Amino acid sequence: MDYSKVSPRELRHLIRVGEITGPTAGMCAGYAQANLVILPKALAYDFLLFAQRNPKPCPILEVADAGSRELHYMAADCDIAKDFPKYRVYERGELAGEYTDIEALWRDDFVSFIIGCSFSFEADLLAAGIPVRHIEEGRNVPMYVTNIDCRPAGCFAGKMVVSMRPLAGEAIPQAVQITGAMPRVHGAPIHIGDPEAIGIHDINKPDFGDAVTIKPGETPVFWPCGVTPQAVVMQSKPEIVITHAPGHMLVLDVKNLALKY
Amino acid sequence: MDYSKVSPRELRHLIRVGEITGPTAGMCAGYAQANLVILPKALAYDFLLFAQRNPKPCPILEVADAGSRELHYMAADCDIAKDFPKYRVYERGELAGEYTDIEALWRDDFVSFIIGCSFSFEADLLAAGIPVRHIEEGRNVPMYVTNIDCRPAGCFAGKMVVSMRPLAGEAIPQAVQITGAMPRVHGAPIHIGDPEAIGIHDINKPDFGDAVTIKPGETPVFWPCGVTPQAVVMQSKPEIVITHAPGHMLVLDVKNLALKY
Repeated sequence: MDYSKVSPRELRHLIRVGEITGPTAGMCAGYAQANLVILPKALAYDFLLFAQRNPKPCPILEVADAGSRELHYMAADCDIAKDFPKYRVYERGELAGEYTDIEALWRDDFVSFIIGCSFSFEADLLAAGIPVRHIEEGRNVPMYVTNIDCRPAGCFAGKMVVSMRPLAGEAIPQAVQITGAMPRVHGAPIHIGDPEAIGIHDINKPDFGDAVTIKPGETPVFWPCGVTPQAVVMQSKPEIVITHAPGHMLVLDVKNLALKY
Repeated sequence: MDYSKVSPRELRHLIRVGEITGPTAGMCAGYAQANLVILPKALAYDFLLFAQRNPKPCPILEVADAGSRELHYMAADCDIAKDFPKYRVYERGELAGEYTDIEALWRDDFVSFIIGCSFSFEADLLAAGIPVRHIEEGRNVPMYVTNIDCRPAGCFAGKMVVSMRPLAGEAIPQAVQITGAMPRVHGAPIHIGDPEAIGIHDINKPDFGDAVTIKPGETPVFWPCGVTPQAVVMQSKPEIVITHAPGHMLVLDVKNLALKY
Protein backbone atom coordinates (compact mmCIF):
# COMPACT_ATOMS: atom_id res chain seq x y z
CA MET A 1 0.00 0.00 0.00
CA ASP A 2 1.32 3.42 -0.97
CA TYR A 3 0.74 5.51 2.16
CA SER A 4 1.85 8.69 0.36
CA LYS A 5 -1.50 8.65 -1.46
CA VAL A 6 -4.00 7.82 1.32
CA SER A 7 -6.07 10.59 2.92
CA PRO A 8 -5.06 11.87 6.37
CA ARG A 9 -8.32 10.52 7.86
CA GLU A 10 -7.71 7.07 6.40
CA LEU A 11 -4.12 7.07 7.63
CA ARG A 12 -5.20 8.05 11.16
CA HIS A 13 -7.66 5.13 11.13
CA LEU A 14 -4.92 2.70 10.05
CA ILE A 15 -2.71 3.97 12.87
CA ARG A 16 -5.62 3.85 15.35
CA VAL A 17 -6.24 0.15 14.73
CA GLY A 18 -2.53 -0.66 14.93
CA GLU A 19 -1.87 -1.33 11.24
CA ILE A 20 0.83 1.36 11.16
CA THR A 21 3.25 1.73 14.08
CA GLY A 22 6.32 3.18 12.33
CA PRO A 23 7.54 6.65 11.29
CA THR A 24 5.16 8.75 9.18
CA ALA A 25 7.70 10.55 6.94
CA GLY A 26 6.41 10.66 3.36
CA MET A 27 2.87 9.58 4.21
CA CYS A 28 -0.15 11.58 2.92
CA ALA A 29 1.96 13.71 0.59
CA GLY A 30 1.12 17.42 0.76
CA TYR A 31 -0.46 17.29 4.22
CA ALA A 32 1.09 18.75 7.36
CA GLN A 33 2.35 16.50 10.13
CA ALA A 34 2.63 17.53 13.77
CA ASN A 35 4.52 17.01 17.01
CA LEU A 36 2.81 16.36 20.36
CA VAL A 37 3.27 17.53 23.93
CA ILE A 38 0.66 16.50 26.53
CA LEU A 39 0.86 18.13 29.96
CA PRO A 40 -1.41 18.32 33.01
CA LYS A 41 -3.61 21.44 33.02
CA ALA A 42 -1.64 22.87 35.96
CA LEU A 43 1.34 23.34 33.60
CA ALA A 44 -0.62 24.32 30.48
CA TYR A 45 -0.57 28.09 31.02
CA ASP A 46 3.19 28.20 31.47
CA PHE A 47 3.68 26.04 28.38
CA LEU A 48 1.31 28.11 26.24
CA LEU A 49 3.11 31.25 27.42
CA PHE A 50 6.46 29.61 26.59
CA ALA A 51 5.18 28.97 23.07
CA GLN A 52 3.88 32.55 22.74
CA ARG A 53 7.33 33.82 23.70
CA ASN A 54 9.20 31.30 21.51
CA PRO A 55 7.05 30.79 18.42
CA LYS A 56 9.97 29.85 16.16
CA PRO A 57 11.07 26.69 18.00
CA CYS A 58 7.56 26.08 19.36
CA PRO A 59 4.93 26.93 16.68
CA ILE A 60 1.66 25.69 18.15
CA LEU A 61 -0.92 24.72 15.54
CA GLU A 62 -3.70 23.78 17.96
CA VAL A 63 -4.32 23.29 21.66
CA ALA A 64 -7.02 20.76 22.54
CA ASP A 65 -9.55 21.58 25.23
CA ALA A 66 -8.54 20.26 28.66
CA GLY A 67 -9.33 16.56 28.95
CA SER A 68 -10.34 16.27 25.29
CA ARG A 69 -8.80 13.75 22.92
CA GLU A 70 -10.30 15.55 19.90
CA LEU A 71 -9.14 18.45 17.76
CA HIS A 72 -11.50 21.15 16.47
CA TYR A 73 -9.54 22.67 13.61
CA MET A 74 -6.56 20.71 12.32
CA ALA A 75 -8.11 17.23 12.06
CA ALA A 76 -11.64 15.82 12.12
CA ASP A 77 -12.41 12.36 13.52
CA CYS A 78 -9.11 12.36 15.41
CA ASP A 79 -8.21 10.53 18.63
CA ILE A 80 -5.15 12.13 20.19
CA ALA A 81 -4.61 9.05 22.39
CA LYS A 82 -4.42 6.64 19.44
CA ASP A 83 -3.62 8.46 16.17
CA PHE A 84 0.12 8.90 16.64
CA PRO A 85 1.94 5.64 15.76
CA LYS A 86 4.07 5.80 18.90
CA TYR A 87 4.13 7.76 22.18
CA ARG A 88 6.70 8.32 24.89
CA VAL A 89 5.73 8.81 28.51
CA TYR A 90 8.12 10.68 30.79
CA GLU A 91 7.78 10.84 34.58
CA ARG A 92 9.82 13.52 36.35
CA GLY A 93 11.94 13.89 33.19
CA GLU A 94 12.75 10.16 32.85
CA LEU A 95 11.45 7.95 30.04
CA ALA A 96 8.90 5.62 31.68
CA GLY A 97 7.68 3.78 28.60
CA GLU A 98 6.78 3.72 24.90
CA TYR A 99 3.23 2.98 23.78
CA THR A 100 1.31 2.75 20.52
CA ASP A 101 -1.88 3.81 22.35
CA ILE A 102 -2.24 5.90 25.52
CA GLU A 103 -5.98 5.49 26.13
CA ALA A 104 -5.33 3.62 29.37
CA LEU A 105 -3.15 6.46 30.66
CA TRP A 106 -5.52 9.29 29.74
CA ARG A 107 -6.48 11.83 32.42
CA ASP A 108 -9.23 14.43 32.51
CA ASP A 109 -6.67 17.16 33.19
CA PHE A 110 -4.48 16.42 30.16
CA VAL A 111 -3.98 19.28 27.68
CA SER A 112 -2.60 18.33 24.25
CA PHE A 113 -0.41 20.73 22.28
CA ILE A 114 -0.14 20.04 18.53
CA ILE A 115 3.07 21.62 17.25
CA GLY A 116 4.21 22.39 13.69
CA CYS A 117 7.02 20.31 12.16
CA SER A 118 9.81 20.95 9.66
CA PHE A 119 8.49 18.18 7.36
CA SER A 120 6.16 20.91 6.03
CA PHE A 121 8.89 23.28 4.89
CA GLU A 122 11.13 20.48 3.63
CA ALA A 123 8.38 19.56 1.16
CA ASP A 124 8.51 23.12 -0.17
CA LEU A 125 12.34 23.15 -0.34
CA LEU A 126 12.31 19.90 -2.35
CA ALA A 127 9.57 21.24 -4.63
CA ALA A 128 11.79 24.25 -5.36
CA GLY A 129 14.67 21.96 -6.30
CA ILE A 130 16.68 22.66 -3.14
CA PRO A 131 18.42 19.48 -1.93
CA VAL A 132 17.75 18.40 1.66
CA ARG A 133 20.86 16.45 2.63
CA HIS A 134 19.52 14.17 5.40
CA ILE A 135 16.71 13.06 3.08
CA GLU A 136 19.22 12.41 0.27
CA GLU A 137 21.34 10.37 2.69
CA GLY A 138 18.43 8.55 4.33
CA ARG A 139 19.25 9.85 7.83
CA ASN A 140 17.53 11.80 10.57
CA VAL A 141 18.11 15.55 10.44
CA PRO A 142 21.09 16.58 12.63
CA MET A 143 20.04 18.60 15.68
CA TYR A 144 22.18 20.59 18.12
CA VAL A 145 21.70 22.24 21.50
CA THR A 146 22.83 25.87 21.06
CA ASN A 147 23.90 28.61 23.46
CA ILE A 148 20.77 30.62 22.49
CA ASP A 149 18.51 31.13 25.49
CA CYS A 150 14.80 30.65 24.92
CA ARG A 151 12.65 33.31 26.54
CA PRO A 152 11.64 31.72 29.86
CA ALA A 153 7.99 31.41 30.92
CA GLY A 154 6.95 30.28 34.40
CA CYS A 155 8.61 26.94 35.15
CA PHE A 156 9.98 26.50 31.61
CA ALA A 157 13.43 27.71 30.51
CA GLY A 158 16.34 26.38 28.47
CA LYS A 159 18.48 26.59 25.36
CA MET A 160 17.17 26.48 21.80
CA VAL A 161 17.70 23.28 19.80
CA VAL A 162 18.30 23.78 16.08
CA SER A 163 18.24 21.51 13.04
CA MET A 164 20.90 21.91 10.33
CA ARG A 165 20.73 21.58 6.54
CA PRO A 166 23.89 22.33 4.54
CA LEU A 167 23.25 24.44 1.42
CA ALA A 168 25.19 25.91 -1.48
CA GLY A 169 25.44 29.70 -1.44
CA GLU A 170 22.98 30.28 -4.26
CA ALA A 171 20.32 28.12 -2.60
CA ILE A 172 20.40 29.93 0.75
CA PRO A 173 18.44 33.06 -0.25
CA GLN A 174 15.69 30.87 -1.75
CA ALA A 175 15.64 28.64 1.31
CA VAL A 176 15.33 31.66 3.61
CA GLN A 177 12.41 33.04 1.65
CA ILE A 178 10.62 29.70 1.28
CA THR A 179 10.84 28.84 4.98
CA GLY A 180 10.34 32.44 6.10
CA ALA A 181 6.94 32.30 4.42
CA MET A 182 5.96 29.44 6.76
CA PRO A 183 6.23 30.86 10.30
CA ARG A 184 3.74 28.27 11.58
CA VAL A 185 6.31 25.53 10.91
CA HIS A 186 9.44 27.18 12.40
CA GLY A 187 9.88 29.84 9.71
CA ALA A 188 13.18 31.30 8.51
CA PRO A 189 16.61 30.08 9.70
CA ILE A 190 17.83 31.41 13.05
CA HIS A 191 21.51 31.36 12.01
CA ILE A 192 23.56 30.86 8.85
CA GLY A 193 27.25 29.97 8.88
CA ASP A 194 29.64 29.66 11.83
CA PRO A 195 28.44 26.90 14.19
CA GLU A 196 30.74 28.16 16.99
CA ALA A 197 28.83 31.45 17.10
CA ILE A 198 25.80 29.61 18.48
CA GLY A 199 27.74 27.25 20.71
CA ILE A 200 28.07 24.25 18.39
CA HIS A 201 31.64 23.00 18.79
CA ASP A 202 31.60 19.97 16.47
CA ILE A 203 29.19 20.03 13.55
CA ASN A 204 29.89 16.33 12.99
CA LYS A 205 28.56 15.39 16.43
CA PRO A 206 24.90 16.41 16.63
CA ASP A 207 23.16 16.13 20.01
CA PHE A 208 20.17 14.41 18.35
CA GLY A 209 19.69 12.76 14.95
CA ASP A 210 22.55 11.91 12.58
CA ALA A 211 25.53 13.79 11.12
CA VAL A 212 25.23 14.55 7.39
CA THR A 213 27.78 15.36 4.70
CA ILE A 214 28.68 19.04 4.24
CA LYS A 215 30.14 19.34 0.75
CA PRO A 216 32.92 21.79 -0.19
CA GLY A 217 31.46 25.26 -0.68
CA GLU A 218 28.32 24.54 1.36
CA THR A 219 27.36 26.52 4.44
CA PRO A 220 25.44 25.09 7.39
CA VAL A 221 22.01 26.67 7.78
CA PHE A 222 20.29 26.35 11.16
CA TRP A 223 16.53 26.37 11.84
CA PRO A 224 14.71 26.48 15.18
CA CYS A 225 13.71 22.90 16.00
CA GLY A 226 10.62 21.36 17.56
CA VAL A 227 12.78 19.30 19.89
CA THR A 228 13.27 22.56 21.83
CA PRO A 229 9.93 22.50 23.69
CA GLN A 230 10.37 18.82 24.55
CA ALA A 231 13.89 19.45 25.89
CA VAL A 232 12.70 22.46 27.88
CA VAL A 233 9.75 20.54 29.37
CA MET A 234 12.00 17.64 30.41
CA GLN A 235 14.35 20.03 32.22
CA SER A 236 11.52 21.14 34.50
CA LYS A 237 10.92 17.45 35.41
CA PRO A 238 7.12 17.58 35.45
CA GLU A 239 5.22 14.78 37.19
CA ILE A 240 4.16 13.50 33.76
CA VAL A 241 4.53 14.54 30.13
CA ILE A 242 3.64 12.53 27.04
CA THR A 243 5.13 13.18 23.60
CA HIS A 244 5.14 11.41 20.25
CA ALA A 245 8.16 9.20 19.55
CA PRO A 246 10.55 10.98 17.13
CA GLY A 247 9.31 10.75 13.54
CA HIS A 248 6.01 9.15 14.62
CA MET A 249 3.77 12.13 13.91
CA LEU A 250 0.10 13.03 13.65
CA VAL A 251 -1.00 13.61 10.05
CA LEU A 252 -3.37 16.60 9.88
CA ASP A 253 -6.22 17.40 7.48
CA VAL A 254 -4.46 20.68 6.67
CA LYS A 255 -2.19 20.94 3.64
CA ASN A 256 1.31 22.37 4.02
CA LEU A 257 0.31 25.11 1.61
CA ALA A 258 -2.48 26.25 3.94
CA LEU A 259 0.02 26.83 6.75
CA LYS A 260 1.43 29.78 4.82
CA TYR A 261 -1.63 31.94 5.34
CA MET B 1 7.05 69.66 21.00
CA ASP B 2 6.96 67.32 18.02
CA TYR B 3 6.06 63.97 19.57
CA SER B 4 6.57 62.15 16.25
CA LYS B 5 10.32 62.53 16.80
CA VAL B 6 10.76 61.63 20.48
CA SER B 7 11.98 58.16 21.47
CA PRO B 8 9.48 55.60 22.78
CA ARG B 9 11.18 55.62 26.19
CA GLU B 10 10.98 59.40 26.40
CA LEU B 11 7.34 59.35 25.34
CA ARG B 12 6.46 56.74 27.97
CA HIS B 13 8.09 58.95 30.61
CA LEU B 14 6.05 61.97 29.48
CA ILE B 15 2.89 59.88 29.69
CA ARG B 16 3.93 58.42 33.06
CA VAL B 17 4.26 61.87 34.66
CA GLY B 18 0.96 63.05 33.16
CA GLU B 19 2.31 65.42 30.52
CA ILE B 20 0.50 63.50 27.76
CA THR B 21 -3.02 62.18 28.35
CA GLY B 22 -4.41 62.14 24.79
CA PRO B 23 -4.35 59.77 21.81
CA THR B 24 -0.94 58.53 20.64
CA ALA B 25 -1.57 58.37 16.86
CA GLY B 26 1.45 59.73 15.00
CA MET B 27 3.75 59.77 18.01
CA CYS B 28 7.25 58.15 17.79
CA ALA B 29 7.06 57.66 14.03
CA GLY B 30 8.19 54.21 12.91
CA TYR B 31 7.63 52.51 16.25
CA ALA B 32 4.85 50.01 16.97
CA GLN B 33 1.97 50.90 19.28
CA ALA B 34 -0.08 48.37 21.21
CA ASN B 35 -3.47 47.61 22.72
CA LEU B 36 -3.95 46.42 26.31
CA VAL B 37 -6.10 43.81 28.02
CA ILE B 38 -5.49 43.14 31.73
CA LEU B 39 -7.28 40.15 33.30
CA PRO B 40 -7.02 38.27 36.59
CA LYS B 41 -4.73 35.20 36.37
CA ALA B 42 -7.75 32.88 36.70
CA LEU B 43 -8.87 34.00 33.21
CA ALA B 44 -5.42 34.27 31.63
CA TYR B 45 -5.21 30.72 30.26
CA ASP B 46 -8.56 30.97 28.48
CA PHE B 47 -7.61 34.36 27.04
CA LEU B 48 -4.18 33.18 25.85
CA LEU B 49 -5.85 30.14 24.27
CA PHE B 50 -8.43 32.45 22.62
CA ALA B 51 -5.55 34.43 21.14
CA GLN B 52 -3.77 31.26 19.97
CA ARG B 53 -6.96 30.21 18.18
CA ASN B 54 -7.70 33.69 16.79
CA PRO B 55 -4.31 35.25 16.00
CA LYS B 56 -5.64 37.54 13.25
CA PRO B 57 -8.02 39.61 15.41
CA CYS B 58 -5.92 39.02 18.55
CA PRO B 59 -2.18 39.12 17.70
CA ILE B 60 -0.45 39.06 21.06
CA LEU B 61 2.96 40.74 21.07
CA GLU B 62 3.81 40.05 24.72
CA VAL B 63 2.25 38.69 27.89
CA ALA B 64 3.64 40.12 31.12
CA ASP B 65 4.42 37.80 34.02
CA ALA B 66 1.53 37.52 36.50
CA GLY B 67 1.47 40.52 38.83
CA SER B 68 4.25 42.30 36.93
CA ARG B 69 3.90 45.83 35.57
CA GLU B 70 7.04 45.41 33.43
CA LEU B 71 7.66 44.01 29.97
CA HIS B 72 10.72 41.92 29.10
CA TYR B 73 10.86 42.15 25.32
CA MET B 74 8.80 44.91 23.70
CA ALA B 75 9.70 47.86 25.94
CA ALA B 76 12.40 48.54 28.54
CA ASP B 77 11.77 50.82 31.53
CA CYS B 78 8.02 50.44 31.08
CA ASP B 79 5.27 50.69 33.72
CA ILE B 80 2.12 49.02 32.41
CA ALA B 81 0.04 50.79 35.09
CA LYS B 82 1.13 54.29 34.01
CA ASP B 83 2.51 54.31 30.44
CA PHE B 84 -0.80 54.26 28.56
CA PRO B 85 -2.30 57.78 28.45
CA LYS B 86 -5.75 56.50 29.43
CA TYR B 87 -7.27 53.29 30.82
CA ARG B 88 -10.79 51.94 31.06
CA VAL B 89 -11.88 49.71 33.93
CA TYR B 90 -14.82 47.37 33.37
CA GLU B 91 -16.55 45.46 36.15
CA ARG B 92 -18.81 42.58 35.08
CA GLY B 93 -18.81 44.02 31.54
CA GLU B 94 -19.83 47.56 32.56
CA LEU B 95 -17.55 50.60 32.29
CA ALA B 96 -16.67 51.50 35.89
CA GLY B 97 -14.26 54.36 35.24
CA GLU B 98 -11.52 55.99 33.16
CA TYR B 99 -8.08 56.63 34.64
CA THR B 100 -4.76 58.03 33.47
CA ASP B 101 -2.96 55.80 36.00
CA ILE B 102 -4.08 52.47 37.46
CA GLU B 103 -1.36 51.99 40.09
CA ALA B 104 -3.92 52.25 42.89
CA LEU B 105 -6.02 49.48 41.32
CA TRP B 106 -3.14 47.09 40.66
CA ARG B 107 -3.44 43.49 41.91
CA ASP B 108 -0.83 40.77 42.26
CA ASP B 109 -2.92 38.44 40.11
CA PHE B 110 -3.20 40.79 37.11
CA VAL B 111 -1.86 39.49 33.78
CA SER B 112 -1.30 42.10 31.04
CA PHE B 113 -1.69 41.22 27.38
CA ILE B 114 0.02 43.58 24.91
CA ILE B 115 -1.72 43.26 21.54
CA GLY B 116 -0.64 44.39 18.07
CA CYS B 117 -2.42 47.33 16.42
CA SER B 118 -3.29 48.31 12.86
CA PHE B 119 -1.36 51.59 13.22
CA SER B 120 1.68 49.47 12.30
CA PHE B 121 0.37 48.32 8.93
CA GLU B 122 -1.21 51.67 8.11
CA ALA B 123 2.26 53.21 8.28
CA ASP B 124 3.40 50.71 5.64
CA LEU B 125 0.34 51.33 3.44
CA LEU B 126 0.96 55.08 3.52
CA ALA B 127 4.67 54.57 2.80
CA ALA B 128 3.67 52.58 -0.31
CA GLY B 129 1.45 55.43 -1.48
CA ILE B 130 -1.82 53.67 -0.68
CA PRO B 131 -4.37 56.15 0.70
CA VAL B 132 -5.93 55.36 4.08
CA ARG B 133 -9.31 57.06 3.99
CA HIS B 134 -10.03 57.59 7.69
CA ILE B 135 -6.61 59.23 8.10
CA GLU B 136 -7.26 61.45 5.05
CA GLU B 137 -10.62 62.44 6.53
CA GLY B 138 -9.37 62.86 10.10
CA ARG B 139 -11.76 60.26 11.51
CA ASN B 140 -11.54 57.03 13.49
CA VAL B 141 -11.39 53.87 11.38
CA PRO B 142 -14.90 52.41 10.83
CA MET B 143 -15.38 49.08 12.64
CA TYR B 144 -18.18 46.53 12.28
CA VAL B 145 -19.35 43.46 14.17
CA THR B 146 -19.53 40.64 11.59
CA ASN B 147 -21.31 37.27 11.45
CA ILE B 148 -17.90 35.52 11.52
CA ASP B 149 -17.57 33.37 14.64
CA CYS B 150 -14.28 33.52 16.45
CA ARG B 151 -12.98 30.13 17.55
CA PRO B 152 -14.18 29.84 21.16
CA ALA B 153 -11.77 29.11 24.03
CA GLY B 154 -12.94 28.35 27.56
CA CYS B 155 -15.22 31.18 28.72
CA PHE B 156 -14.50 33.38 25.68
CA ALA B 157 -16.59 33.33 22.49
CA GLY B 158 -18.08 35.86 20.09
CA LYS B 159 -18.13 37.41 16.64
CA MET B 160 -15.15 38.95 14.89
CA VAL B 161 -14.97 42.75 14.67
CA VAL B 162 -13.38 44.11 11.49
CA SER B 163 -12.03 47.47 10.40
CA MET B 164 -12.71 48.75 6.87
CA ARG B 165 -10.58 50.75 4.45
CA PRO B 166 -11.99 51.47 0.96
CA LEU B 167 -9.46 50.95 -1.83
CA ALA B 168 -9.26 51.29 -5.60
CA GLY B 169 -8.94 47.99 -7.46
CA GLU B 170 -5.31 48.42 -8.37
CA ALA B 171 -4.31 49.16 -4.76
CA ILE B 172 -5.93 46.03 -3.28
CA PRO B 173 -3.30 43.47 -4.35
CA GLN B 174 -0.53 45.67 -2.93
CA ALA B 175 -2.49 46.22 0.29
CA VAL B 176 -3.04 42.46 0.70
CA GLN B 177 0.65 41.74 0.28
CA ILE B 178 1.84 44.58 2.50
CA THR B 179 -0.46 43.68 5.38
CA GLY B 180 -0.13 39.93 4.79
CA ALA B 181 3.58 40.34 5.51
CA MET B 182 2.71 41.63 9.00
CA PRO B 183 0.79 38.79 10.72
CA ARG B 184 1.77 40.13 14.16
CA VAL B 185 -0.39 43.21 13.53
CA HIS B 186 -3.55 41.54 12.13
CA GLY B 187 -2.07 40.49 8.77
CA ALA B 188 -3.95 40.23 5.48
CA PRO B 189 -7.60 41.25 5.02
CA ILE B 190 -10.25 38.73 6.11
CA HIS B 191 -12.74 39.79 3.39
CA ILE B 192 -12.79 41.97 0.28
CA GLY B 193 -16.00 43.27 -1.28
CA ASP B 194 -19.63 42.51 -0.35
CA PRO B 195 -20.32 43.70 3.22
CA GLU B 196 -23.56 41.64 3.37
CA ALA B 197 -21.55 38.42 2.98
CA ILE B 198 -20.04 38.96 6.44
CA GLY B 199 -23.21 40.30 8.04
CA ILE B 200 -22.66 44.04 7.60
CA HIS B 201 -26.02 45.47 6.53
CA ASP B 202 -25.17 49.19 6.30
CA ILE B 203 -21.59 50.12 5.51
CA ASN B 204 -22.41 53.73 6.43
CA LYS B 205 -23.31 52.79 10.01
CA PRO B 206 -20.23 51.27 11.66
CA ASP B 207 -20.66 49.72 15.12
CA PHE B 208 -17.55 51.55 16.37
CA GLY B 209 -15.56 54.49 14.97
CA ASP B 210 -16.76 56.73 12.14
CA ALA B 211 -18.16 56.19 8.65
CA VAL B 212 -15.79 57.17 5.83
CA THR B 213 -16.30 58.08 2.18
CA ILE B 214 -16.27 55.20 -0.31
CA LYS B 215 -15.52 56.76 -3.70
CA PRO B 216 -16.96 55.44 -6.98
CA GLY B 217 -15.01 52.41 -8.13
CA GLU B 218 -13.62 51.64 -4.68
CA THR B 219 -14.18 48.34 -2.89
CA PRO B 220 -14.42 47.96 0.88
CA VAL B 221 -11.54 45.91 2.30
CA PHE B 222 -11.99 44.38 5.77
CA TRP B 223 -9.25 43.52 8.26
CA PRO B 224 -9.54 41.61 11.56
CA CYS B 225 -9.68 44.25 14.30
CA GLY B 226 -8.16 44.43 17.78
CA VAL B 227 -11.53 45.49 19.20
CA THR B 228 -12.51 41.81 18.80
CA PRO B 229 -10.77 40.53 21.95
CA GLN B 230 -12.12 43.43 24.01
CA ALA B 231 -15.68 42.76 22.77
CA VAL B 232 -15.33 39.04 23.44
CA VAL B 233 -13.97 39.60 26.94
CA MET B 234 -16.82 42.01 27.80
CA GLN B 235 -19.40 39.43 26.72
CA SER B 236 -18.13 37.01 29.35
CA LYS B 237 -18.65 39.74 32.01
CA PRO B 238 -15.51 39.04 34.04
CA GLU B 239 -15.27 40.42 37.58
CA ILE B 240 -12.73 42.98 36.32
CA VAL B 241 -10.94 43.77 33.07
CA ILE B 242 -8.81 46.82 32.32
CA THR B 243 -8.09 48.04 28.78
CA HIS B 244 -6.53 51.13 27.24
CA ALA B 245 -8.98 53.84 26.11
CA PRO B 246 -9.39 53.73 22.30
CA GLY B 247 -6.44 55.40 20.55
CA HIS B 248 -4.54 55.81 23.83
CA MET B 249 -1.87 53.20 23.16
CA LEU B 250 1.45 52.01 24.57
CA VAL B 251 4.39 52.99 22.35
CA LEU B 252 6.86 50.10 22.15
CA ASP B 253 10.63 50.08 21.63
CA VAL B 254 10.10 47.83 18.59
CA LYS B 255 9.90 49.33 15.11
CA ASN B 256 7.01 48.40 12.83
CA LEU B 257 9.55 46.96 10.42
CA ALA B 258 10.76 44.48 13.05
CA LEU B 259 7.24 43.06 13.40
CA LYS B 260 7.55 41.55 9.92
CA TYR B 261 10.13 38.96 10.96
